[in-house]
Amino acid sequence: MSSIIKYTDNNIIVNQTIYGFLNTYKHLVSIPKVPRAITNKKRKNNNVVLISGGGSGHEPAHIGFVGTNLLDAAVMGDIFEPPSSYEIFKTIQHTYNGHGTLLIIKNFEKDIKVFLEAENKAKNIGLNVDHVIVTDDCSIDPNSKVKRERGVAGTILVHKILGAASNTGLELNDLKILGNNIIKNTKTLGVAFSEIDNIGSLKKKYILDEDEMYFGIGIHGEPGYRKEKIYSSERLSVELINKLIHQFQPNSIHNVAIMVNGLGSITLLELSIVMNNIHELLKLEDISIDFSLLGNFMTSFNTNGLSITMLNIENNQCIKYLQADTNAFGWNKR
Amino acid sequence: MSSIIKYTDNNIIVNQTIYGFLNTYKHLVSIPKVPRAITNKKRKNNNVVLISGGGSGHEPAHIGFVGTNLLDAAVMGDIFEPPSSYEIFKTIQHTYNGHGTLLIIKNFEKDIKVFLEAENKAKNIGLNVDHVIVTDDCSIDPNSKVKRERGVAGTILVHKILGAASNTGLELNDLKILGNNIIKNTKTLGVAFSEIDNIGSLKKKYILDEDEMYFGIGIHGEPGYRKEKIYSSERLSVELINKLIHQFQPNSIHNVAIMVNGLGSITLLELSIVMNNIHELLKLEDISIDFSLLGNFMTSFNTNGLSITMLNIENNQCIKYLQADTNAFGWNKR
Repeated sequence: MSSIIKYTDNNIIVNQTIYGFLNTYKHLVSIPKVPRAITNKKRKNNNVVLISGGGSGHEPAHIGFVGTNLLDAAVMGDIFEPPSSYEIFKTIQHTYNGHGTLLIIKNFEKDIKVFLEAENKAKNIGLNVDHVIVTDDCSIDPNSKVKRERGVAGTILVHKILGAASNTGLELNDLKILGNNIIKNTKTLGVAFSEIDNIGSLKKKYILDEDEMYFGIGIHGEPGYRKEKIYSSERLSVELINKLIHQFQPNSIHNVAIMVNGLGSITLLELSIVMNNIHELLKLEDISIDFSLLGNFMTSFNTNGLSITMLNIENNQCIKYLQADTNAFGWNKR
Repeated sequence: MSSIIKYTDNNIIVNQTIYGFLNTYKHLVSIPKVPRAITNKKRKNNNVVLISGGGSGHEPAHIGFVGTNLLDAAVMGDIFEPPSSYEIFKTIQHTYNGHGTLLIIKNFEKDIKVFLEAENKAKNIGLNVDHVIVTDDCSIDPNSKVKRERGVAGTILVHKILGAASNTGLELNDLKILGNNIIKNTKTLGVAFSEIDNIGSLKKKYILDEDEMYFGIGIHGEPGYRKEKIYSSERLSVELINKLIHQFQPNSIHNVAIMVNGLGSITLLELSIVMNNIHELLKLEDISIDFSLLGNFMTSFNTNGLSITMLNIENNQCIKYLQADTNAFGWNKR
């Protein structure tokens, strides 16, 4: 697969991407002197501030989730590298309104390091800041057999639910409790049908044959836990949905939200077929899908692949938070 | 590039895709006994009905543009094949409300044939139906040197402007005049960085080397007019924007809408960089971009490529129509 950015100066890729979005979406603006930190111009000033971010290369995440009933700010780093703790700290400081700030961090060592450094800097100047760490990935490490628990596409559901909850006036501590409850109930599994292209200095971490797929890949092109010959979307959906259901206690799931997330270069046609497969499957299992999310939300540059996220819904308020309207461009129109 | 639908029964691909969308977007519903004809449950009954459609494989088009201030109905055919005139006729009949119906047709021989057959059938039973034909593609046929004038991504801008105009109560004849005026002022050029994958019985119509791009390709994998080695997004934007500007009378362009449309497997990151390039270029030309649209709207299955559409804006009302809110999932949140 070819790509025009191979022929574009690597140092300007991330900033140009952000400027393209700022030119298109007028409610977004950079923080002065921190061009990769983006806030919602129309954000309210009487609720807990929600901030997330991480490496670039996951578009529309995270900039696409800045908006009403979603994030107040997002900070982007280089491709697949988190922003600096300085940039995160400046974002906390710039958006602080006296009601506290919650950081939503994806469970990667590098991300946790910089976000917690920023949180501590902010606490040192008297700001009230806390965090949650998203751990939705339930793929296993093929060597240690330990669950990886990385923060992947499910992070977007956490953004939306906490964003809409914060907008109703929930306080920092309650928001953190809600966040951890959602995280506990959110599980994701991914599969790739292609490796990721080399981007700048980042090289392929695995190679797939034309007719192979790889279960459990990461969102930075990390290898998965099992390669297989590609089979039909229906059989693939059975495989992934069964694995996801087994993450929860037996008979504990009655209502769910389902997200079918494209990893970068898969077609919407294919994602929609998988969504239909899942609806047919869960009907047989007598599980009600109360909210469906379909499209590219947390991509892995130009990976041809998808992930399925299942959120076990324990109370109806969650659905209302997911349905709440937003102007964030990464979220679905409906 | 691999694809799960290669391993899925071809006959069910289109219906499964549509069912996936219907499961996700609750304002959409099939017409009884015409499963590939989709209407907006919440449509008003006191305005001109807008209907479009065509082959599948262009998702989110056309089903994604059914909604408030957009289409009242869309009818999809097999991959890259228009629906039957019977399906279109049934859609006209089912949605008819006495205020007339306008068909928006993309300029392809097969599409025009079935849509006009359906229009005539409807007229024969006394319904008031008319049409516009979109001709925004300004690529040239390399042999005849004639402009191809196919209906491509610009069709989506025609949908939106006419949809919002119809919603304000414009009558059929005025809507047709507005449509033809918008079509005259809408120009699109595409470029591909990969061929399209084989899908079912559809085979590749051209082959590109890894480092080649192809200007002027169609949305069904049709060959373009010139192959070149891939160069930077900035130089590519200069090339395409200059060609688009030259479609209009010298010095006649002051305000435009710009759409950067992905053809299926290009990343949003790349599309956003191109959007930024265009904003920088048009600033130098003293042309104001009053509306920007960024994403996948009219795809060509899994082509890695993009098209740029320039709409020359002759009056401000157009921008209001483009900005009007919608629940159609193919349109951008903002």
